[in-house]
Formats: sequence, C-alpha cells, structure tokens
Amino acid sequence: MKAYVTVMPKNGVLDPQGKAIGHALGTLGFQGVGEVRAGKVIELELAETDPAKARAVAEDMARRLLANTVIESFKVELA
Amino acid sequence: MKAYVTVMPKNGVLDPQGKAIGHALGTLGFQGVGEVRAGKVIELELAETDPAKARAVAEDMARRLLANTVIESFKVELA
Repeated sequence: MKAYVTVMPKNGVLDPQGKAIGHALGTLGFQGVGEVRAGKVIELELAETDPAKARAVAEDMARRLLANTVIESFKVELA
Repeated sequence: MKAYVTVMPKNGVLDPQGKAIGHALGTLGFQGVGEVRAGKVIELELAETDPAKARAVAEDMARRLLANTVIESFKVELA
C-alpha cells in the first residue's frame, strides 16, 4: 500500500523557503497571500498490507530519516 | 482559507531524491519498500474565502511559480 509522509516546519521555526515563495507570489501580482510554508511529501510504496502496521512503519521511517523532529512535524496518510 | 499545493515529479521523470531516500531506508534496515518519490507541499494562507476562487488562484500560482509543469504535476487541496 502507499504511504504519504508530509513533513512541515514546526510553527515558530523560520521557513526561508516559504518566505521566498510568498515574496515571489507578491512579485507576480498575487494579492491576499498571508503566511506561506514550504514542506515536503514523500510517497512510499510499501509491501506491508496491514494499515496499522504500514502506518507504524511509515512513522518510524519519518522519525528516523524523513523528518528532523526537532524542527519539523510530520503526518502519515495511507492510500 | 488555507490552500495546500502538492507538487510531485511526473511518472517517468527521474527522481534522484526519491531514489536516495529509498536507498537510505534500505540502509537503515527497512524492508519491503518499493518505489519512493519525493515532492513538495506548499501551504498558503489566502484572504480569498470563496472555495472555487481560492482553488483557481492556487492553481494559477502552481502553474506560474510553484510547479514546473513540464516535469511536475500538482494538486490543490483546500482546508
């Protein structure tokens, strides 16, 4: 089954990439844009078919490799 | 309202970041990991409150700045 791990900078952590995107959108003429935050998403094809186990594995992957939990939060979605 | 633009490499496009993550997961001992693809997600706080208009604006942003539509596909979710 597929697992999607979404990793975002935690609130309060400086996000220069998000700031740069927000600035660029303003330059392009987009108005009414508030805070912009940039994160990453990792799509994993897992052999595991049990949803609970797949989620546990994906969370373990996120903690050990995909996210820096000091400054980033993550969430796991299955599909 | 919030818009989430998810940008992924199109199928068939080489994804070295995804490959590197897949390799690293193998090194860490994770088994049963198939294809891994890495994309990005941009969270936008929009002043627009009409969902249809907000979606149209976010799609325009994706086409003009956030995604390279030659090699990347995107989707917009509202929250």
